[in-house]
Amino acid sequence: MKIMPTEAAQAVHFDSEVARGVTGRVVIGRVDGANNFCMRRFDLAPGGHTPRHAHAWEHEIFFHAGEGEVYHDGQWIRVAPGDAVFVPGDQEHQIRNAGDAALTFICLVPAGAPEI
Amino acid sequence: MKIMPTEAAQAVHFDSEVARGVTGRVVIGRVDGANNFCMRRFDLAPGGHTPRHAHAWEHEIFFHAGEGEVYHDGQWIRVAPGDAVFVPGDQEHQIRNAGDAALTFICLVPAGAPEI
Repeated sequence: MKIMPTEAAQAVHFDSEVARGVTGRVVIGRVDGANNFCMRRFDLAPGGHTPRHAHAWEHEIFFHAGEGEVYHDGQWIRVAPGDAVFVPGDQEHQIRNAGDAALTFICLVPAGAPEI
Repeated sequence: MKIMPTEAAQAVHFDSEVARGVTGRVVIGRVDGANNFCMRRFDLAPGGHTPRHAHAWEHEIFFHAGEGEVYHDGQWIRVAPGDAVFVPGDQEHQIRNAGDAALTFICLVPAGAPEI
């Protein structure tokens, strides 16, 4: 069994036009023996956003803290702590921070997708 | 894409000696086209606990709110919001509320495991 603060996982930072102010962490993955799906934690700084992209694998996302918006089909949809999002494969999506504090969410992907 | 407050998913209540004060909800599952893994939300009332059990499939758990403890190998280990737990298959485990408010966590299982 692995029990840990998600903040303690190794941080990878992304900061460009494509992915602004993003910190990502693999919390539970292949190295832990998780062979079916992988848990990552993401923190977006105020003004931060993930890439707008699509890919074959799905996301299951849970919003833990902060204020955010999710891009879907030409619209930005507000999300709050406790909300969940299912992004099926091949659907264009993007997440951005819509508040003054960090936006923290958990994003899970199936085995075979890139872990970070 | 599905975007929803996790509290809005249909609630199933468990209240017995085995599972005390537990509310479970399937947030993202087969009905949504999630064919690889399933997200459930659980809320444990003060004094509440899940069953102490083991099964072949793994759990990936993220603690969202409240104070909890996880049973592992004869010990109770404290968990707080932002913590994650990986329970590999066949490991005995149990979760209990250790505070005065609800304990809320997200628990994911691979496809093929019971969704709730």
